[in-house]
Amino acid sequence: MSDDKKVSRRDILKMGTAGAFGIAGSYYLNKMAQFPTVAQASNDSSHKTSNHSNHSNHANMIDKTKTTGYKMAERLLTDFDYGEVTKLPNGQILREYKVVAIDKEIEIAKGIKFPGWTYNGTIPGPTFRCTEGDLLRFHFINKGSHPHSIHFHGIHPPEMDGLTSIYPGQKFTYEFEANPYGLQIYHCHVLPLARHIHKGLYGNFIIDPKKPREPALELNMVMNGFDLDLDGENEFYTVNGYANAFMNHPIKIKKDQLVRIYLSNLTEFDLLNSFHLHANYFTYYPTGRNDNPSQFTDTIMQCQGERGIIEVRFPYKGTYMFHAHVSEFAELGWMGFFEVE
Amino acid sequence: MSDDKKVSRRDILKMGTAGAFGIAGSYYLNKMAQFPTVAQASNDSSHKTSNHSNHSNHANMIDKTKTTGYKMAERLLTDFDYGEVTKLPNGQILREYKVVAIDKEIEIAKGIKFPGWTYNGTIPGPTFRCTEGDLLRFHFINKGSHPHSIHFHGIHPPEMDGLTSIYPGQKFTYEFEANPYGLQIYHCHVLPLARHIHKGLYGNFIIDPKKPREPALELNMVMNGFDLDLDGENEFYTVNGYANAFMNHPIKIKKDQLVRIYLSNLTEFDLLNSFHLHANYFTYYPTGRNDNPSQFTDTIMQCQGERGIIEVRFPYKGTYMFHAHVSEFAELGWMGFFEVE
Amino acid sequence: MSDDKKVSRRDILKMGTAGAFGIAGSYYLNKMAQFPTVAQASNDSSHKTSNHSNHSNHANMIDKTKTTGYKMAERLLTDFDYGEVTKLPNGQILREYKVVAIDKEIEIAKGIKFPGWTYNGTIPGPTFRCTEGDLLRFHFINKGSHPHSIHFHGIHPPEMDGLTSIYPGQKFTYEFEANPYGLQIYHCHVLPLARHIHKGLYGNFIIDPKKPREPALELNMVMNGFDLDLDGENEFYTVNGYANAFMNHPIKIKKDQLVRIYLSNLTEFDLLNSFHLHANYFTYYPTGRNDNPSQFTDTIMQCQGERGIIEVRFPYKGTYMFHAHVSEFAELGWMGFFEVE
Repeated sequence: MSDDKKVSRRDILKMGTAGAFGIAGSYYLNKMAQFPTVAQASNDSSHKTSNHSNHSNHANMIDKTKTTGYKMAERLLTDFDYGEVTKLPNGQILREYKVVAIDKEIEIAKGIKFPGWTYNGTIPGPTFRCTEGDLLRFHFINKGSHPHSIHFHGIHPPEMDGLTSIYPGQKFTYEFEANPYGLQIYHCHVLPLARHIHKGLYGNFIIDPKKPREPALELNMVMNGFDLDLDGENEFYTVNGYANAFMNHPIKIKKDQLVRIYLSNLTEFDLLNSFHLHANYFTYYPTGRNDNPSQFTDTIMQCQGERGIIEVRFPYKGTYMFHAHVSEFAELGWMGFFEVE
Repeated sequence: MSDDKKVSRRDILKMGTAGAFGIAGSYYLNKMAQFPTVAQASNDSSHKTSNHSNHSNHANMIDKTKTTGYKMAERLLTDFDYGEVTKLPNGQILREYKVVAIDKEIEIAKGIKFPGWTYNGTIPGPTFRCTEGDLLRFHFINKGSHPHSIHFHGIHPPEMDGLTSIYPGQKFTYEFEANPYGLQIYHCHVLPLARHIHKGLYGNFIIDPKKPREPALELNMVMNGFDLDLDGENEFYTVNGYANAFMNHPIKIKKDQLVRIYLSNLTEFDLLNSFHLHANYFTYYPTGRNDNPSQFTDTIMQCQGERGIIEVRFPYKGTYMFHAHVSEFAELGWMGFFEVE
Repeated sequence: MSDDKKVSRRDILKMGTAGAFGIAGSYYLNKMAQFPTVAQASNDSSHKTSNHSNHSNHANMIDKTKTTGYKMAERLLTDFDYGEVTKLPNGQILREYKVVAIDKEIEIAKGIKFPGWTYNGTIPGPTFRCTEGDLLRFHFINKGSHPHSIHFHGIHPPEMDGLTSIYPGQKFTYEFEANPYGLQIYHCHVLPLARHIHKGLYGNFIIDPKKPREPALELNMVMNGFDLDLDGENEFYTVNGYANAFMNHPIKIKKDQLVRIYLSNLTEFDLLNSFHLHANYFTYYPTGRNDNPSQFTDTIMQCQGERGIIEVRFPYKGTYMFHAHVSEFAELGWMGFFEVE
């Protein structure tokens, strides 16, 4: 964040419609405009002193601009890094990934910059993807200004668990077999842990089962937060690093299409995050495992480090909101729309 | 709350036995009186400076008064709104519900008033009930001073999801088929979300499966909190809107009777709430679905928006406490008793 | 804590590597020394001003001392109190346990004392253990300075639920049949609840199924926190009462051996706690019941009062970290190692 601009969580919440929501919430307004019978102003005198959002004042805030931050979030939604693939003499697939830790300023909301520590220049980092049993090599180079590491969740030799600090300028190759199938995460494990994770060093890591899952529109979503003033509270909450990314630019879905969301929670400073889908139910597979008990619901929570797969079909056309069912997180950027056509 | 009386969460907690607990905790004391051998004062000199509750000083606080607030909580426990029922030509059941948003002061603890925004005059609102496949019409009139809406959880066309603000004086009819069976919730979805929900605009919404559940004593419980001084922290926690409602007036149960509790968490400002039952175990069905994995336990948690069905039988006579297993919430009003006869 | 030494949560976090971690985290450093290629200092000028832990400066802090506090945590790990056993005429097993509430100063981190209220002199208290169907008698004597009680989770007559205060100098015998099998907890239920629990009055209570579980290395772990300055925030988080107990003294495991962990959360002042295992997956049985849906994962959360059984085998030799996946809790003492040989 630039020096001349300090934004506290309290400030953001106070801004209300002219602030966080106003910046990126214009799709919400747009959606409302579909209902002119109710969106028309009534002769409502008690209305003047209310502490709610008068959406109709914000018709001029509709913003279809694809900012740098939005483009990052959008790309992370469907971009999977399968590595460089070769076949070993024994028939095993070898995947090699390049991971560079680099300090980078990230646009996390329209015009708001965060001085991030990143893997490969985005927050979250790339979504690594492979199949159970593949041999994986992550060639890690620390080009950042602090020691970092990569701690992968999953089963592997413990010396590959990322406890060792890789100092700036140094390299390390993490090598292990992809195991078990499911949704893993990865993050920096250098102390102080909260700061290293929070600065942006995390991402999803998908190990596909050997028997492929049913074809689907696959989406990657990492829930996170950003503490701009270093007070141990997040000022913005996002999916894929950009506040309200999918409010102005809803995610396009086809009616009845199977949608599979790889959802994880890497939010620091709050004990949990949650996901709620409007007007629909989904099946939730904790840790992305088909042998774990699944739930049919519309609201799930994840503590930090938890993750799971959501599978859903949309039976009606229209726009479906999704957001944290923590109201404060929703208002601070963790909201979006699916547009079903 | 009246202007001359500001109560902070810290104040309430400091009041200790003379405060929140003293007001409504007399049943607890009463229960203790069953054990004279241990309740008698010992010649315990070290006792004088303790920071615990000296229950025996409070024998004069037993209060069986049925206040307005208590009566509301008690009514919500067993009152289900099935709507006005007609049969459509195609045989489908049509249920029509009247929902009026109205500002109303609610007694949330003995003598403590909360300036609520309500559906039909209570916090929580009515427990709407129907059967899977019924056609539902919620005729909503906003007679409050702010824009409001009703966001129903469940599967329905997204234009019925309550994102659109209904301004004071305006009406809107939400119409959709009841789907899927299970325990749903509903709440206002106007921004700022936390304030609109917290002011009281929420309730349970039961969609019964077509094959009826086993007959049982059915109880409705909505966990919530009240922020009296608008500092973003709750001063009182309740079930059905009245602190310690079922402490002085335990819920009467018959031994071995099946009890089914429709439990949801609409608490704002805290990331989760929980339910613990003393001296017994229950079966918990997340989202009220029999096809979701159930648990046999005595303690469950719910994030905001989560809900589930508890089924339990009591094998012994006596009084069984239930409360949040968040000690602070329990002490601030979220405690009650079942009395098994 | 002695009067001349006040430590706030903020202080501890600020201490960073010279503080909480430096005191007990030397095993972490030791482990790092296994990787000289990456642990060597690089000529890294940007490194000087970083806000991370420069582990290599702490080589002189390796501490293998077995302090009093560590010894308590280690003993609680594998010490199960089966009571005094006799057989009743009807063939039923009777187990009688002695439980004494006593005020005792507990070393909760190296050199840090906590003025505890304890059952039998430790925090957590003893791990009571029995088999489903046994008759249990807990002969409780309150030798502390405040009223206390024992509230057992499980199914039993409600008059045995520990709501009644047992005053200093008084005795009470809790008697009931062990039911149902699974992992229970127990804690004081005198008001104010948060203070009585937080001071140390809690522990695990294992009811084994009649058909014994598969033989395993069995470990008892109670997650808790300590609020030294009485501000309603914990300054230290531990497993079994001693910060970083198993960092300097990893828990020895044999490769491929079945390990069964009885894990519960008795942390006050925080809404949840969590458990994450590095480089491996475990099976988690909520409430320790085989008939509850189990999960295969590496991260689980528990609200206060929740508990479960973790079963895990380690396929590779080496040291595996385990810790809360709440970064702050991990940094304030809730970290440890398994050493697999």
